Order: sequence, then structure tokens, then C-alpha cells
Amino acid sequence: MRAGFIGLGAMGKPMAINLHKAGLLGSIWNRTAAVAAGLAGELGCVQANDPGALAAVSDLVVICVSGDDDVLEMVDAIGPCLDAGAIVIDCSTVSAKTAREAARRLASFDVGFLDCPVSGGTEGARAGSLSIMAGGDADDLTRARPVLEAMGRTIVHMGPVGAGQATKATNQIMVAGINQAVSEALAFAQAHDLPMDRLLTALSGGAAGNWFLSHRGPTMVRGEYPLGFKVDLHQKDLQICADMAAEYGVRLPIIEMTRHHYTRLLAAEHGDEDISSLFRIKSELFRDGET
Amino acid sequence: MRAGFIGLGAMGKPMAINLHKAGLLGSIWNRTAAVAAGLAGELGCVQANDPGALAAVSDLVVICVSGDDDVLEMVDAIGPCLDAGAIVIDCSTVSAKTAREAARRLASFDVGFLDCPVSGGTEGARAGSLSIMAGGDADDLTRARPVLEAMGRTIVHMGPVGAGQATKATNQIMVAGINQAVSEALAFAQAHDLPMDRLLTALSGGAAGNWFLSHRGPTMVRGEYPLGFKVDLHQKDLQICADMAAEYGVRLPIIEMTRHHYTRLLAAEHGDEDISSLFRIKSELFRDGET
Repeated sequence: MRAGFIGLGAMGKPMAINLHKAGLLGSIWNRTAAVAAGLAGELGCVQANDPGALAAVSDLVVICVSGDDDVLEMVDAIGPCLDAGAIVIDCSTVSAKTAREAARRLASFDVGFLDCPVSGGTEGARAGSLSIMAGGDADDLTRARPVLEAMGRTIVHMGPVGAGQATKATNQIMVAGINQAVSEALAFAQAHDLPMDRLLTALSGGAAGNWFLSHRGPTMVRGEYPLGFKVDLHQKDLQICADMAAEYGVRLPIIEMTRHHYTRLLAAEHGDEDISSLFRIKSELFRDGET
Repeated sequence: MRAGFIGLGAMGKPMAINLHKAGLLGSIWNRTAAVAAGLAGELGCVQANDPGALAAVSDLVVICVSGDDDVLEMVDAIGPCLDAGAIVIDCSTVSAKTAREAARRLASFDVGFLDCPVSGGTEGARAGSLSIMAGGDADDLTRARPVLEAMGRTIVHMGPVGAGQATKATNQIMVAGINQAVSEALAFAQAHDLPMDRLLTALSGGAAGNWFLSHRGPTMVRGEYPLGFKVDLHQKDLQICADMAAEYGVRLPIIEMTRHHYTRLLAAEHGDEDISSLFRIKSELFRDGET
């Protein structure tokens, strides 16, 4: 199997390197050509001139880009150049609707599509230990499995095309709520002058225990917000979640409240910090006596 | 050391039994006398006629009752009957202000006070594995430690009187937010017809992982809300949290939103269900298309 990889960002680059290590990577393409040139030189793989040229020499293409429009643009560029029976795996985080539209466009070329958003951050991408939430046809998933297993450790088939993105959106909503929970509670504790290290010990082992408290709590209580997961990326994902809820005529309170808070963080130029910097806003409530 | 125990409810009774097993329990008292009579018969310990009589034969008293007023009423009843140098341990969940007031009143009799709210539920109470968040004088805590160790596994000294209750309040705020996070995300997933068991697997191992998802998720996705922790008790605790935040002129969004939702659950007579029944309200959003 010759795989092509489109989108060599913070996640895509280490994922492409893992495909190369597994002997599956043929060619790569990136909008900023210098990045692809650098990696092609490093790995000894082919830098394609454009997405279509990459598709022409691949029987599987992995896409890992930023937005819904980017995904559809790439799909339109590679669809006509892929052989019938090829498969496209989209690891970007976009809406389920975009996933279904991408699958529809590729189906006209008899090309399969899997939406496979990932979780586990850049560390997971480097280690090849990502959690991959897959949507699409079971046979396509079986054929794509060697590629997915080169990039991730947990691969869960969630249903038809779009189900992977719906699962990722669910994950992002839950992370938003837990961020709200942890940052609000820690701000309350800080205002009451509690010893924060001991607090983390007392709370981590009980019913309030969670990954975010264990991994971000120790830096939050020092007022540090190293990456992690950027505020501006989570904000983009929550826009997707809000749009997906709006299709049901629903506005969800955790999503809306977190978007409101992130907008304030972005305005204060904290968009490049880890999302745990929500603690700034909750702490300010106590400092300023706002309501 | 002869300990007396006041308040033999769902938590207090198993805690008293563990004190008895450790050879520390002298006498017991409960507002509903039949409960104390039954336990006294079972354990072969003394059922005191009133809190004062219990205090007169105890050099340490554990209180485990429901509300702030109850704690102060008990403190007023036992204070005059305790010898100087005795210690009162309050395991109830009340405000830090009430803890400080209780300590002030007992200090006039030269009696020490520790606020020691617990977490770990009735299972933890039975197993003697409670997490105990202690506030008070370090010497008092040292003397009381045998009693606390008979009831709990993790005993963390959080600071002066009131610090235990402030820690418990922090815990209850975090639990409220996590309940919001999990129930909102699962309702979103359910509306998108995702396979919920696989979803729990996909999300539990990542950045959204938390105790509540692992322990309540499996029943929530079946629409079941077994105890656990009752809605009406968490509502009481969140009132305490709200009052403690109000002392800083602050209203905290997770607290306020959760109280609003619990009020609706209580009105619909779901107050005796586990707090994960918040999932009912989030699911209704999608069913009814409310906003």
C-alpha cells in the first residue's frame, strides 16, 4: 500500500513520520512547500508538486488539515486523480456534515472515505498512541487499518461516515465542561487560601478525579498554561460542536459558556496558551468581585 | 480514648461501626432514638439519653448531621458537658463559617474543634476508606488521628478551622461541573445516534477521562440513575458553595447553572436519584428542541 499524506502541521508531521517508519508512506504535500521539502529530505520520500500529483501515485491518502473548507478543497483536488477503490482518511477535526459531503464527492469516483479524527495531542502523534474515532464503511476500515495502526493505539469504529467526527465533537464538549469544572473549583479554592498542592491530592483520588485535574492542575495552580491544547483550536472545535447542536435546534450551555470565555481569552491574546488558562477568567472573578 | 458519635444516618452509622471495631466507640445518640437503640443493641455500646449525657462520658465527639443549624445545636448541647481538652470532630458538610462559629463556641469551654467533611460515599464509609479533608489545629488533629484513621484512608490537613469545609465545597463544585460536562456530552452523542458503549471506551482513555464518566456513564447511557449521591444532597451542598462564593461578592456559573438544573429535577421528583440524572435534562434539550 502506497499512502500519501497531506497536511504536515503539528499533528500531521509526526503522524506522517510514523507512516514512514511502518514502510507505508510514498509521497507528501503541504501548503507551505518548505515544510514538505524539509521532511521529504529528512525521510527520503517524494514531495508531490500538488495534491493531484500525490493522489496519482497513492492508493490511500491521509488528510490532516485545519478547517472544513480545507478538507473539501483537498477532496476535490485528489478525487479525480485517485484510482477507483482508493481510500481517503481524513484525520482533521471538522463537522460530521463536512465528512458526509467529502464521502459523497469521493463516491462519484468510486473512492472510499473514512472520517478519523484523533485525540492524544502532539505527544500521542509522536508516540503513535493516538486514539482514533473512525466513521465509515467497515470494509474500508479493514483495508485502512494498517495505516491507522501505524498512527494510533486505540481505533474505535463508531458507525457510518460522520460518526467519527460526532465522537470527536462529544469529546471536545466534555473537555470544555471539565475545564469549566476544574478551573472554577480551583479558583474557589485559591480564594479561600487553601494549600493548592494538598488540595490536588485530596481531590484527585475521589469522585472529582479526572485526567485534566491530574495533568493540568499542577501547572494551573502556579499560574502556568504550557501546551497542551491551544485555546484557539478548542474554540474552532466548539464552533463545530455548536453548529452540530444547532442542526437539532439546540444551544448547549457548556459549549456556549466556554465559547464566551474563550472569546475573552482570545481578545486578551491568550489564544496560544493551553485551554487551562480559563483559570485566568475564573480567578479574576474573585479578584475583581465581578458577578 | 472514649468517643461519642452523634448522627447515625447513611454515612454516620457505618462510620460509628468502624469506630466500634477499632475499640474507640463509647456511646451514641441519634435524633430518631430507635436508630440509636437498634445500633446500641447490635454493638453493645451505650445509647445516651441526650447529646449532653453523651458528652459527659466522652473525651472526643464525632458529629455527622445534615445542616449548619444542626451542627451548631449539637455544639451548644455538648460544649458545657465536655471536659476541657476534649475534641469535637464535625464530619457534616456545612459552610466554613459554621465551622469557625462552632470552633469559637467550643473554645469558650477549652474544647478543640476539627472540621472533617468526608468524601467517598456510603461505600467508603462502610469500608473505612473515606477521604477526610481536615481543618483545625495541628495538635488537635494529631490527637484525633486514631479516630479519623478508623473511618478514613486519606486524611489531608488543609489548614485552620474552616479549611476542611472549603476543600469539600471545592470538591462539590468540581463534581457539579463534571456532571455538567459528562451529561451534556453524552446527550449530544445520543442525539447523533452514536453507539454509547463504544463511545465510553473511546473517551475514557483520553483527555476527557474522569471518575464520573467511568462510574456513572454505563448507567447513564441506559437511562438509569442508581445511588450514588442524591440530587437533593448535592443541591444542599451547592447552596453552601454559593453562599461561600457570595462572601466574595461572586456568583460562579457552574454552581448557578447546576442549582438551576437540580431545582428542575427536584420539582420533577427526581431528588432521590443519583446526580447523574442531570442527563435527563440535557437529553430533553434534544428531544424537545428547546434552547
